[in-house]
Amino acid sequence: MRGNRRQRQEMDLHLGTCLEAVRRRRPLIVCITNFVTVNDCANALLAVGASPVMTDSPQDAGDLLSCADGLYLNIGTVTAESAELMVHAARLAKQREIPVLLDPVGAGASEIRTKTAEELLISGNIGFLRGNISEIRALTGKSSTIRGVDVGAEDDKGAMFDANSALAAELAKRYSICVGVSGPVDRVASGRRLVLVENGDPLLPRICGTGCVLSAVSAAFAAAPQDPFEAFTAAFALCGLAGERARALLGPSCGPAAMRTAFLDSLFAIRGEDLDRGARLRRQGADNQ
Amino acid sequence: MRGNRRQRQEMDLHLGTCLEAVRRRRPLIVCITNFVTVNDCANALLAVGASPVMTDSPQDAGDLLSCADGLYLNIGTVTAESAELMVHAARLAKQREIPVLLDPVGAGASEIRTKTAEELLISGNIGFLRGNISEIRALTGKSSTIRGVDVGAEDDKGAMFDANSALAAELAKRYSICVGVSGPVDRVASGRRLVLVENGDPLLPRICGTGCVLSAVSAAFAAAPQDPFEAFTAAFALCGLAGERARALLGPSCGPAAMRTAFLDSLFAIRGEDLDRGARLRRQGADNQ
Amino acid sequence: MRGNRRQRQEMDLHLGTCLEAVRRRRPLIVCITNFVTVNDCANALLAVGASPVMTDSPQDAGDLLSCADGLYLNIGTVTAESAELMVHAARLAKQREIPVLLDPVGAGASEIRTKTAEELLISGNIGFLRGNISEIRALTGKSSTIRGVDVGAEDDKGAMFDANSALAAELAKRYSICVGVSGPVDRVASGRRLVLVENGDPLLPRICGTGCVLSAVSAAFAAAPQDPFEAFTAAFALCGLAGERARALLGPSCGPAAMRTAFLDSLFAIRGEDLDRGARLRRQGADNQ
Repeated sequence: MRGNRRQRQEMDLHLGTCLEAVRRRRPLIVCITNFVTVNDCANALLAVGASPVMTDSPQDAGDLLSCADGLYLNIGTVTAESAELMVHAARLAKQREIPVLLDPVGAGASEIRTKTAEELLISGNIGFLRGNISEIRALTGKSSTIRGVDVGAEDDKGAMFDANSALAAELAKRYSICVGVSGPVDRVASGRRLVLVENGDPLLPRICGTGCVLSAVSAAFAAAPQDPFEAFTAAFALCGLAGERARALLGPSCGPAAMRTAFLDSLFAIRGEDLDRGARLRRQGADNQ
Repeated sequence: MRGNRRQRQEMDLHLGTCLEAVRRRRPLIVCITNFVTVNDCANALLAVGASPVMTDSPQDAGDLLSCADGLYLNIGTVTAESAELMVHAARLAKQREIPVLLDPVGAGASEIRTKTAEELLISGNIGFLRGNISEIRALTGKSSTIRGVDVGAEDDKGAMFDANSALAAELAKRYSICVGVSGPVDRVASGRRLVLVENGDPLLPRICGTGCVLSAVSAAFAAAPQDPFEAFTAAFALCGLAGERARALLGPSCGPAAMRTAFLDSLFAIRGEDLDRGARLRRQGADNQ
Repeated sequence: MRGNRRQRQEMDLHLGTCLEAVRRRRPLIVCITNFVTVNDCANALLAVGASPVMTDSPQDAGDLLSCADGLYLNIGTVTAESAELMVHAARLAKQREIPVLLDPVGAGASEIRTKTAEELLISGNIGFLRGNISEIRALTGKSSTIRGVDVGAEDDKGAMFDANSALAAELAKRYSICVGVSGPVDRVASGRRLVLVENGDPLLPRICGTGCVLSAVSAAFAAAPQDPFEAFTAAFALCGLAGERARALLGPSCGPAAMRTAFLDSLFAIRGEDLDRGARLRRQGADNQ
């Protein structure tokens, strides 16, 4: 059964309203992120109407956070120094009541990545976590087939899918955060709710950084005044829908580089009503609402 | 009144000649810049005919400067270490009589950014400064509505516009440099002259890095044998015109990612005579020539 | 005389088989590379079917290498710290019998670049070296006209071409490695063999990072189970052919930014049989097979 508008209303999720709120408020998002996908993250934030500022320095981060609306942390090229910077910035953000999103890129693939993500979660300063299923499994202590930063292909199929949804929900509850898991079907979980987002395109994971971009966009949505679960879901639906729009524009044989351009431009073009019309949400059986 | 060719000739600015000089000489530009927009800066330098080399190490910078034609400094992701590197490199460049351009990204938004830009200006080793009006205001000690690295929306409207032009001219005089301010209408000031550049497109500021790119291109033009004010003005007109060309190619509903590609390719395609024909310059009333 | 299929078969090079092997095995390539072209390298690796992971930390690199298939080192923005990291990672990779490719960006242009490349070569942990002719000359102790990271225009013309091929072969023999030299005509040398690759497009060097991308792709091919010389040659032919495809799609007046997109998408689209059909190889007279 595909999600539809009526079901979404039953779920009481106003996705388009969240998008319009981001565009109206233009939240300033401080980003401490990897040097691989940083440019796409910045352009995606601009495309959805946010104002990005990247930093790699404790002095700078402290000042920037004094008037920021959100903090985006991404451990894609984490070092001992940048891990410390992230812990410091998350603490400041928490003090100032600014929402913090963590993308635990490659958690499970190296000790420094796993430990940094865990330390940030345990600190209680993180409000949103967005990863692929291998990363989420690693952070719940489950083994996975992760190698590097890509998702283990066997980790989310068949019966594993429901089990993984339960893990995401468990993680959300353990840390009192929202957890978003991207994959062929995305999941967003809070301690009370769980929703599947069926938007997307199979080419998106072949573009470097679409996961990071989804996280950056989610950080902007987290800074909107809406309900956190609702805003996070809107970010997932928006990015998936942007992939679908890009594919519709470019046709079946398009490559990932052309897709990237069209994906970013779709983030820019999609309006609140497009998002409400195009989002495909579904409650999962495991929904514990 | 829009600028036209005759007025430009009266101003004695030969913009196309500057562009052709860059393409002919292929200046080697050493860049110490942020990791967000560095790739666009490199591609823009290649597009206008310059040869970029990026560095993040004092040893490396020293050697590279020994045969360089220009130095581009950008504090977009400045750290305590890179600030020191920039100060060191600017001193070397000055000793070797190589022009240095500074882009004070986010000056006013954090202490480290403001202090680094000020230290570089006070050193006397900077010849060219290119920023948005919030950054320029911050460096003249004026408050602005800056948050992060974007321009404060209210900072350059109406009566503020002329006042800001006067500030840019004042800054140029104070440090004996050329100051370029980008915005809906750009301004280039030396101690004696002030010109408005009316080329551009409203989508350019929605692309991450177009300011940095303008600065990088300006550093290449600064290395041409032309008059510094003339060369700086040519760089502004070129980038604005490239935005116009991109828009003309892509139409009214294009997005920023497609625009970026077309903008870089327009930098590559525009010839000296195109620049002479397309540049729209105007003297300001405040012109103190 | 242009290379043709029959001659390639005589040379016993099965290029398409190498490409298909990369796509099938999806090798995990750990990359320690510059922050200028890192995103293109990652996207190119994804496009050919490999799985890239970038790192900038010793702890991280050690863990990632424990399940990696290849290591890519690039000194494009090398610092004292990253040079040390590269030496350390190359040693680990050697211990684990993982092939290591070095791109000596700007060797000859600064002491730290030259020394780092030499130290890595002398360590005996490098299996593949990919540079332009200025860099290769610098590493054989020959002077060149290099300034910055671009090739000296006069360094590979006329009689110099054959002399340079001999230098590449000499370097390959000295360190018992494969050496690939990119230029208007590429060369791949092992201690025993030398082949010219005539694929390519004149616009490729005007795109920042096509050299780095070729190196990254070569690192993925080096991780395939094929003969190292054969795999390296396949990577060169693939990248050259991708440039030709991009040009054929875009026409004679295309710019470098559009070309970049089409180039990356051609890397994604080209199949083994396309590569076998399109590769243009030639033995050189200096071939000492």
